[in-house]
Amino acid sequence: MPVGAAGAYRIVGMETHDVRFPTSRQLDGSDAMNPDPDYSAAYVVLKTDDGFEGHGFAFTIGRGNDVQTTAISALEPYVIGKDVEDLGALYKDMVNDSQLRWLGPEKGVMHMAISAVVNALWDLKAKRAGKPLWRLLSELSPEQIVDLIDFRYLSDALTRDEALQILKNAEQGKAERIARLIEVGYPAYTTSPGWLGYDDEKLRRLCKEALDQGFGQIKLKVGADLEDDRRRFRVAREICGPDFPIAIDANQRWDVGSGIEWINALREFKPHWVEEPTSPDDVLGHAAIARGIEPIPVATGEHVQNRIIFKQLLQANAISYLQIDSARVGGVNENLAILLLAAKFGVPVCPHAGGVGLCELVQHLSMFDYVAVTGTMDDRVIEYVDHLHEHFVDPVVIRNGRYVAPSAPGFSGELHAASITAHTFPDGEVWRDA
Amino acid sequence: MPVGAAGAYRIVGMETHDVRFPTSRQLDGSDAMNPDPDYSAAYVVLKTDDGFEGHGFAFTIGRGNDVQTTAISALEPYVIGKDVEDLGALYKDMVNDSQLRWLGPEKGVMHMAISAVVNALWDLKAKRAGKPLWRLLSELSPEQIVDLIDFRYLSDALTRDEALQILKNAEQGKAERIARLIEVGYPAYTTSPGWLGYDDEKLRRLCKEALDQGFGQIKLKVGADLEDDRRRFRVAREICGPDFPIAIDANQRWDVGSGIEWINALREFKPHWVEEPTSPDDVLGHAAIARGIEPIPVATGEHVQNRIIFKQLLQANAISYLQIDSARVGGVNENLAILLLAAKFGVPVCPHAGGVGLCELVQHLSMFDYVAVTGTMDDRVIEYVDHLHEHFVDPVVIRNGRYVAPSAPGFSGELHAASITAHTFPDGEVWRDA
Repeated sequence: MPVGAAGAYRIVGMETHDVRFPTSRQLDGSDAMNPDPDYSAAYVVLKTDDGFEGHGFAFTIGRGNDVQTTAISALEPYVIGKDVEDLGALYKDMVNDSQLRWLGPEKGVMHMAISAVVNALWDLKAKRAGKPLWRLLSELSPEQIVDLIDFRYLSDALTRDEALQILKNAEQGKAERIARLIEVGYPAYTTSPGWLGYDDEKLRRLCKEALDQGFGQIKLKVGADLEDDRRRFRVAREICGPDFPIAIDANQRWDVGSGIEWINALREFKPHWVEEPTSPDDVLGHAAIARGIEPIPVATGEHVQNRIIFKQLLQANAISYLQIDSARVGGVNENLAILLLAAKFGVPVCPHAGGVGLCELVQHLSMFDYVAVTGTMDDRVIEYVDHLHEHFVDPVVIRNGRYVAPSAPGFSGELHAASITAHTFPDGEVWRDA
Repeated sequence: MPVGAAGAYRIVGMETHDVRFPTSRQLDGSDAMNPDPDYSAAYVVLKTDDGFEGHGFAFTIGRGNDVQTTAISALEPYVIGKDVEDLGALYKDMVNDSQLRWLGPEKGVMHMAISAVVNALWDLKAKRAGKPLWRLLSELSPEQIVDLIDFRYLSDALTRDEALQILKNAEQGKAERIARLIEVGYPAYTTSPGWLGYDDEKLRRLCKEALDQGFGQIKLKVGADLEDDRRRFRVAREICGPDFPIAIDANQRWDVGSGIEWINALREFKPHWVEEPTSPDDVLGHAAIARGIEPIPVATGEHVQNRIIFKQLLQANAISYLQIDSARVGGVNENLAILLLAAKFGVPVCPHAGGVGLCELVQHLSMFDYVAVTGTMDDRVIEYVDHLHEHFVDPVVIRNGRYVAPSAPGFSGELHAASITAHTFPDGEVWRDA
């Protein structure tokens, strides 16, 4: 593949792959709602007439990954033969297609398909530019950034002019922040100790490892059994000490009333935040929970379907931390809108990651946020889970509990060809033998 | 096919069909967001070992109907070989499948697929019972009804006990209401005059026809051009008179601020309600619009993804009319929850219909609401659009502007086999010739 290229190019091919990792065999990733996930990627490769490839995917947890892959294939007519220099226009064309829109609008399978394709287009663009995506985005002008965003349904909370002003205010000091980011990386926290399927001994060992590795925060899954949660939280506090940030994550397990009760029963352990206490659709429910557990902060976002729900979570003072996901909303473009919304409301963005390649992707967005939007890494952390990175061509690097800024061109979401082949469902060797 | 049957049975087969009607050729169904829909059904047939069939579908408007059909096929393992007597348990199994849930949860393509299957199961159940669905549901006990509902995420607005009480309060007088319903039918309104693609002459003619046919309300599509809307509203008022209920429908065209401005510019024409002023996800936006246009009522629902968004619309006093759709949320079961939520909050349900077979299905739900939930038809109307009914085995019957209560066993959503064959995409004769 050539390294960096300028000028016009066209997409001439799209491949999709149903890739699944049998993670349920080890209970990795087990939580109160997802007891046995098989981390999967509905994977797409775009090919250009000048020899580049863009890779992207929607993340799922097993069954239904075939449906998700079919939805990505349905977008082929929107990219094949297209000159894809203007990713603002192409994104808006896909999201606002009047017929496809009926399948959402802007939510669920069809929206995640758009996300996969949009992210693959950005991977392509960054590879052709010879830059990691965070840097490519950071070097765009404020006007170029806002042109990438669909402000429809946002104007009561964030106008184009307000977004432009936020970006202009961050112009100064960009070069220094890029240098600093390259030097020190971006803070991470780890969920690896906290899966529900692990016993106390494993929890204890993984907490110690997290501290030894320099992570500044950990997270525990909760919500299946209260006494179990109290015991595990106590174990984690013993290892980590009384003031170390320990977040908890209920993965949507509760209703409003039961959530408030349960969280208050964990209050003595000082949760750094409580994540996904209830349905990701329930803006008013999150707001009621936030009031019922003050001052414990509420966080959510990994299942939030689009910028319109995020807008309302911010308007309702329902969340204190906003957790973007790189592959659920409409890809890079919609996440730019969400970063700007969060900046407008002064709420720190602490991304969801893990799964298949979500760490690889989302680090670029947080780094862009630091360099070109908020100018700070204070009170911000990117989730880190140590699963499946070995399958990626440009895997994340964690050093002293921080993400090292990627330097390879692209969006870092490319799987090794051999990993795709082995894990293709149902005919790859991993599944054929099962 | 046998007429009525008791005892255990199992599903032994599932067929799916990608059925599309080329409605865009006539601009039927054109509105401000959907200029050229091809009304489509991702269609499913379930077959039992005792010779019955259950028919259901998800409604789409063209592109993506293949994705929707694939999603329905993915549910085959949940029904094949199953004893499907307990439709509460089966519904909850599908909705709460931990892996499939990741594709929503409870929204978009995967949720609409569940809707299609759930509705097909109810069609089957009603056919085997030898009753129209509205009657089958009306004759269930309050306990049987609440067992069909997933109360997760509802308890801050509606508990199981409250739902039970609403149903128990409606027990008295059921028999009289069934008799009355059969005698007079259920009030309808018509959208047929109001499509944006029609010229003033056609609008005038269709308004007159609506009055002649005895409809008590009409609806106009708005939101593409304000001067055009004012002219068309004036034409409709000339024909219908100053006090006749004329609703308007923007199909999500506006942001909060632009919606308030636009609606207030139509205030002099006294809209009976304004429908879908903005994104169906924007609960707080609907609430802000409702306050900004008082006392003009706000209505929404056809694109509302699930009971959780409806719950919030009610909690936030954002809507004065709630518009259920028979085939977007999780089928009959979730619509039962939504009818009960609306009853709790005292908001009339005026269903969305039209498309392919949505009139056929949703009439059953409103009739159940009258007989067994609210006990009233006051201030309630079911949408009626005179498209595509000829393709159904048991099409709706409108008499004096009212839906006649169906008497044939089932859920009325069965297409003629010949219609399926001719309209199958892309190989049916209708498409092959195009």
